[in-house]
Amino acid sequence: MTELTDELRQTLLATALSLADAAGEAILPHFRSRGLSADNKAREGFDPVTVADRAAEEAMRATLARLRPQDGILGEEFGEQAGESGLTWVLDPIDGTRAFLSGTPTWGVLIALANESGPMLGIIDQPFTGERFIGGFGRAHWSGPRNATASLETRDTHHLEDAILFTTFPEVGSPAERRGFEAVRDRVRLTRYGMDCYAYALLAAGQIDLVIEAGLAAYDVQAPIAVIEAAGGIVTDWTGAPVHAGGRVLAAANATLHARALDLLRGTPV
Amino acid sequence: MTELTDELRQTLLATALSLADAAGEAILPHFRSRGLSADNKAREGFDPVTVADRAAEEAMRATLARLRPQDGILGEEFGEQAGESGLTWVLDPIDGTRAFLSGTPTWGVLIALANESGPMLGIIDQPFTGERFIGGFGRAHWSGPRNATASLETRDTHHLEDAILFTTFPEVGSPAERRGFEAVRDRVRLTRYGMDCYAYALLAAGQIDLVIEAGLAAYDVQAPIAVIEAAGGIVTDWTGAPVHAGGRVLAAANATLHARALDLLRGTPV
Repeated sequence: MTELTDELRQTLLATALSLADAAGEAILPHFRSRGLSADNKAREGFDPVTVADRAAEEAMRATLARLRPQDGILGEEFGEQAGESGLTWVLDPIDGTRAFLSGTPTWGVLIALANESGPMLGIIDQPFTGERFIGGFGRAHWSGPRNATASLETRDTHHLEDAILFTTFPEVGSPAERRGFEAVRDRVRLTRYGMDCYAYALLAAGQIDLVIEAGLAAYDVQAPIAVIEAAGGIVTDWTGAPVHAGGRVLAAANATLHARALDLLRGTPV
Repeated sequence: MTELTDELRQTLLATALSLADAAGEAILPHFRSRGLSADNKAREGFDPVTVADRAAEEAMRATLARLRPQDGILGEEFGEQAGESGLTWVLDPIDGTRAFLSGTPTWGVLIALANESGPMLGIIDQPFTGERFIGGFGRAHWSGPRNATASLETRDTHHLEDAILFTTFPEVGSPAERRGFEAVRDRVRLTRYGMDCYAYALLAAGQIDLVIEAGLAAYDVQAPIAVIEAAGGIVTDWTGAPVHAGGRVLAAANATLHARALDLLRGTPV
């Protein structure tokens, strides 16, 4: 296993930033363009793949071939490519394809660097608004429009009754999963829908307190895990176990709030 | 009634832009600030009023006192002020206070100029992302990040099965209103939630096809009406009647799609 010297960390961070830049450049010409084609790749439901999605993953793979050919890749569009370093780049070029298709700037580029234990570094990037959320290697940092920057820090909301909860769909997962979600929803101060990965970014930024989702893939969740943990939050599955391989996700601003939400989700049948 | 000469239209348009600038300057220092206070002004439900909301309406009223003291004002926060010109500025300093409280950049400043017949000019402004949607006086125009500009034009989706539908809440209005909404939702290609006034902006920009809401006030709907009609769309209530006084809103990209959605909503009991 590769030893992570300070120099290597700097190289990997610079690589991650290059990936985000490459993806944004590939995607932006397609955002809000008319007549966007959308293949329906899933047999059930609506899972559009845009030209932009593929172009962005190709751009990121080309960047990695140049800068880090020794690392593995797991990408949403083009699958797995083995590496030799023990490090894997986990890429979702457009998380929130429905948001993208609707013109809403709440989709994001997800980039994570993982080893066998899970993600160490993550970026949630929103190239249209110019927002970039980075966490890992001792950093938890946001940059945004008009050259604004800030550190990322989750907040200290301890009671469900004070919490703001986000999820992507009002129809969360299976009927049992929906009941689990609703048990938390019925306790919190405010619930909002439809934000995809942007919800995790807002949690890391100390703006909201909980994100609950089901049916996520590894590439959906690894960058959020790295960003949120770097900002002081916790991301697990609905039993409290690691969730970097995907599944049911509970992200919380702190350990107290995480435990309280987990109490309501833990019994959800598989 | 004041005659709308070209010169007066230019003055009124410049005034509207000054109002949007003033509101944005008042609001942005408060967006994503920690410890945002939120009075609960409604006895039921969650209707936060932020410091930013009041500061922005005060800034807009001060601008109007300077530039157009002869016009009336109807504002969400500070109510009605009579004028002498027959023209009224209809102001919602922050539409989407829940989005604002959650850090999501999908709230907006709504500015409309109306006479007795309804709005003639509208702006939907999103100062954080730097997006401004303007419609009226022969204009239908968007400006955005990185100095981008575009004309606003609704699209020609004619079948419900091809349409993208937005609404703010999965829980739309009364049980009867919810059934009306669901009748349309069950026919369309894709439904998205939680966008507040940003949904109307996306409709004007040709990104989505339908917005359905209930329980709106005049200040929620007048700017969207002006922007969408200038871009070629149609906004009415659920019977096809004018809706600038508020109520149940159906906004559609074109007349054909409007008629098809209206068929499903028209029978909804009051």
